[in-house]
Amino acid sequence: MTATTPKATNIVWHEASVDRQARASQRGHSSSILWFTGLSGSGKSTLANAVNAALFERGLATYVLDGDNIRHGLCKDLGFSDADREENIRRIGEVAKLFLDAGVIVLTAFVSPFRADRDKARALVADGDFLEIHCAADLAVCESRDPKGLYAKARAGQIKEFTGISSPYEAPEKPELCLDTGAQNLEQCVAAVINLLEERGVLKAAA
Amino acid sequence: MTATTPKATNIVWHEASVDRQARASQRGHSSSILWFTGLSGSGKSTLANAVNAALFERGLATYVLDGDNIRHGLCKDLGFSDADREENIRRIGEVAKLFLDAGVIVLTAFVSPFRADRDKARALVADGDFLEIHCAADLAVCESRDPKGLYAKARAGQIKEFTGISSPYEAPEKPELCLDTGAQNLEQCVAAVINLLEERGVLKAAA
Repeated sequence: MTATTPKATNIVWHEASVDRQARASQRGHSSSILWFTGLSGSGKSTLANAVNAALFERGLATYVLDGDNIRHGLCKDLGFSDADREENIRRIGEVAKLFLDAGVIVLTAFVSPFRADRDKARALVADGDFLEIHCAADLAVCESRDPKGLYAKARAGQIKEFTGISSPYEAPEKPELCLDTGAQNLEQCVAAVINLLEERGVLKAAA
Repeated sequence: MTATTPKATNIVWHEASVDRQARASQRGHSSSILWFTGLSGSGKSTLANAVNAALFERGLATYVLDGDNIRHGLCKDLGFSDADREENIRRIGEVAKLFLDAGVIVLTAFVSPFRADRDKARALVADGDFLEIHCAADLAVCESRDPKGLYAKARAGQIKEFTGISSPYEAPEKPELCLDTGAQNLEQCVAAVINLLEERGVLKAAA
């Protein structure tokens, strides 16, 4: 790192870099993107946070990206136009990729209604690193829950282009997991996600 | 998580969330943003990656954000206009904040020449969570290294608004650490950064 040995700088850089595989070896688990998608009220955040907590109890490196930490921060400049929704999902996909690279099991919980946008996020990473989980509670169930009062506002015309009411939700055609989050209880859904992580070799199966 | 108990969803959400403090307790170290700033060729990436490797050897959760994983991904839509440079640093600050929240010691290695932009990134997080490290190698040293040939191009007028040549570098006024990365060797610099992390209580001092 002296002025006379500029080339050494590059060598040090590469020697010093810590890659995803090194992190996985040290931590005893691989990383993954768990992409939860579904209607508002379908239980995405609830399920993502419950899975996150279950993995944390095992001592694993995990993180949840959701509206709470994205919409007021990284994507606070974006609204709800088609272009902004697309850019929102693009950035989330890129951030999820960074966490994946950092060896973290990252769980994203966004409606992400458009198939093309989800497929672009999937295409950012290698096959098998993107696990799409469809929280497929019926619209009627989601609307009856209406935890944020958004369906009521959408029905009253106070929110335009609300997914499921006035804007389409394009269900995944081949999700890695489809859960009826209207009928199955939370414990069952958490178990199914963890089972998926074990099947895919992200986690070792519990003894 | 049934349609008849919508309120329970919120309760589960809060119970299930895993916060930064819980992660720190489990991991035995806190998190921090180490913001390396300095001229091109000043050794930011080299130093950030060397610190990252040293922390990794201790088994800590760390990650480096730099041009390699940001400019071609999250910020690939941005150029080098003043507005785009500002937005670039804004996004990096927001992503660093997410890693901080995830319990990761995150190291950012960008020229980040403008004081106002760095101060905005600092203002995103609590006092003490943002540690600014000035890689203060002299311009002459950086230019003599010129590892990417950028200074030569800037001098030839092939790159406009190149920091240090045709665009200003605003040095930090009160960085948490200022290192003469032109004179001190890499080991000294790594030791100084780790010492800072120990002083600030992010790491426990090695026995």
